[in-house]
Amino acid sequence: MKEKILDFIEQGNYVEARKEIISQNVVDIAGLFEEINQQKLLILFRILPKDLSSDVFTHMSSELQQYVIESITDEEAISILEHLFIDDVIDFLEEMPSNVVKRMLRNTNENTRRIINQILNYPEDSAGSIMTIEYADLKKEMTVKEAIQYIKKIGIDKETIDTCYVINSNRILEGVISLRKLILSDNSTLVKDIMDTGVIAINTHDDQEDVANMFKKYDYYVMPIVDKENRLVGIITVDDILDVIDQEATEDLQKMAAMQPSEKEYLKTSNWALAKHRIPWLLILMISASFTGNIITRYESALQSVIILATFIPMLMDTAGNSGSQSSTLIIRGLALGELKTSDILKVLRKELCVSGIVGIILSCANFLRIYFIGKVEILVAVTVSITMFLTVILAKIVGGSLPIIAKKLKLDPAIMAGPLITTIVDAVALIIYFTTATWLLGI
Amino acid sequence: MKEKILDFIEQGNYVEARKEIISQNVVDIAGLFEEINQQKLLILFRILPKDLSSDVFTHMSSELQQYVIESITDEEAISILEHLFIDDVIDFLEEMPSNVVKRMLRNTNENTRRIINQILNYPEDSAGSIMTIEYADLKKEMTVKEAIQYIKKIGIDKETIDTCYVINSNRILEGVISLRKLILSDNSTLVKDIMDTGVIAINTHDDQEDVANMFKKYDYYVMPIVDKENRLVGIITVDDILDVIDQEATEDLQKMAAMQPSEKEYLKTSNWALAKHRIPWLLILMISASFTGNIITRYESALQSVIILATFIPMLMDTAGNSGSQSSTLIIRGLALGELKTSDILKVLRKELCVSGIVGIILSCANFLRIYFIGKVEILVAVTVSITMFLTVILAKIVGGSLPIIAKKLKLDPAIMAGPLITTIVDAVALIIYFTTATWLLGI
Repeated sequence: MKEKILDFIEQGNYVEARKEIISQNVVDIAGLFEEINQQKLLILFRILPKDLSSDVFTHMSSELQQYVIESITDEEAISILEHLFIDDVIDFLEEMPSNVVKRMLRNTNENTRRIINQILNYPEDSAGSIMTIEYADLKKEMTVKEAIQYIKKIGIDKETIDTCYVINSNRILEGVISLRKLILSDNSTLVKDIMDTGVIAINTHDDQEDVANMFKKYDYYVMPIVDKENRLVGIITVDDILDVIDQEATEDLQKMAAMQPSEKEYLKTSNWALAKHRIPWLLILMISASFTGNIITRYESALQSVIILATFIPMLMDTAGNSGSQSSTLIIRGLALGELKTSDILKVLRKELCVSGIVGIILSCANFLRIYFIGKVEILVAVTVSITMFLTVILAKIVGGSLPIIAKKLKLDPAIMAGPLITTIVDAVALIIYFTTATWLLGI
Repeated sequence: MKEKILDFIEQGNYVEARKEIISQNVVDIAGLFEEINQQKLLILFRILPKDLSSDVFTHMSSELQQYVIESITDEEAISILEHLFIDDVIDFLEEMPSNVVKRMLRNTNENTRRIINQILNYPEDSAGSIMTIEYADLKKEMTVKEAIQYIKKIGIDKETIDTCYVINSNRILEGVISLRKLILSDNSTLVKDIMDTGVIAINTHDDQEDVANMFKKYDYYVMPIVDKENRLVGIITVDDILDVIDQEATEDLQKMAAMQPSEKEYLKTSNWALAKHRIPWLLILMISASFTGNIITRYESALQSVIILATFIPMLMDTAGNSGSQSSTLIIRGLALGELKTSDILKVLRKELCVSGIVGIILSCANFLRIYFIGKVEILVAVTVSITMFLTVILAKIVGGSLPIIAKKLKLDPAIMAGPLITTIVDAVALIIYFTTATWLLGI
């Protein structure tokens, strides 16, 4: 199919190409447009039906959107924007350079411009910034017949009106009703008599991560957004929540790997930006790790007299870091998904103590067997390493399990308390345990 | 509200409690039920309207579900199950002990039992295992009037019939149409003349992660599931996809922190199970790290003559690990979200080379200034450490950037090539670079 369309385009047979294209899914058409010559794309784009070209436009990459918008007339551009949902307009404008944004806003009508500016002004990652305004707002005094007429008038074939919200004369949100229920009800029934009043609303300034958790909790496809006075101002649909969930998980992952978070795709981020996101934490951790080095300096003479001790430093450090990362990862994720609360800290500590006991015993026994029987190391050295291993695992898991919760209690982001920072902390303590045990057992 | 209901329950005033409860959202009712005495819960559960009690049942924890099912009669249990969507029945049965499952299956009718058994037999994490069968399947020869009558007959007030799928006489999926469009169309129109034929279907055996990516790509709320012969067998709704996305991200995170993945919540997992998930990788990594230790043994005499070199080992190892983790995290996430393909490996390598050049220069300069001017270390030692730092960062980022892609090419899970494994690998190489540079520069 795709080859056929590309062939038609190559031959300049746009009539046949158009015929084939309009039977495709919009997302796939947008994908196809990324692959063809830009001039040919422009011709095709112009001969598509208006509705379809707007839908395809929404799914194009922002590079291609910019090319198209800069190549067409103001009238054409406005006609595209008029067919888009407001949230798609916002997504588009956020990626455009300011001259394009200005040109677009200059040409839209005053009401739309006001709404766009308002949404653009909501804090990043707030519910308001991802909402859309194409919803059906019914008055509670309407009859079913009036309601259906109103819905038909505002444009019925939109998924966003499968759920209708009911407001009073001050636009205060009072209920919700499905289009299905309206259609099945008697024409003269009043909307207020059949609406569901147990409607759960989101505030414009709620964080998008909390919004995502509400969607997960209540299994809704769409939720209403209200302002501080509980007036209905927009809706959020579940397809935007899919993106939010991915974005939040990506941000957490980046923080957990000691980077400043960024929403941009890897290949689309410049080398400088990537470096800038990575350097600060590497510098901080590098300097912190030098304190770990200082511990070695303090025990320099002990180390010099039993130089074999140095051999086990990498293994002890790595195991400490890995043990701590395991615990902190589980706790950070549990906090992010709302499965753990800060009040669970004692439960977590008790659990980590038990688990680390089991893990510590098995690792230190395995380690003793390996270095004493296979490595043929002196028994006291083997005992020193194994005791350190046991204590380190316990300590690492307790630190790894508790720091994310403490961070959350202090209103810091728990994701910072992940592998890299935990490793730096427990490495230092592991070395102190190691050399203390060594000086005591080996008498150095 | 909640306090009021709990008060009524405490007083044994179930009539008033019931009145208050039925005005609440089902998810919140289920939450409330987790907090009250189990016997009182059972009384309340029995006096709720049938539809509502089934809905609430779906949202209860599996512990509470088990308690309820074991406390009620077979008839009551069957009546609950009959009101549930098949995917909720499956979710429930998967968590129950086998005697409960057997009792339930024994009491359902043959047709339902066959369907349940079939879905339970789909591979874990496949599209079939998360699908449901409550959808509207229209015949393409139906008129709009017949279609609407059919939908009303199968039960109209379900979100899952906002989108209807059209099949031919062999149940082959041929099109899709929205309930809205049906209602707006002329009664005598044939469904096949107004349906959308560009329907995108999922195969029962597709992986749920791929299914989630399809939902993200096409922005659908529901997608049809077909078998190998392209016959319609079920649908997947977007609310289940929200859970899939979380679950896949959690699994990746656990693997990235060197654990065996588990779907169970942290606090609900036994200490033994947690330990069992953590020990294998810790053991593997501990043994691998001892090879890093062997490198130190090889340079024991060099180390003994310039013991200060030992001081910088933790810093070099930690920085190497952190640099590598940053790169591997970005690449693993990019692969999981489909933003990166294995064919991008050269682009990634080029990018990591540039970024690591920038990062390496800045870290090694900062490091030189700190240890030479503040630490007052001999200049040749400072140069050795800084050169090692520079080369290690470059190497770590190239290893961290390429191993996940190579893993994916070899059909392994890229998430394994994360922090812990990368750290072990680059630690060893960092030490070789360190001691080679040292013997060469310091002449030891």
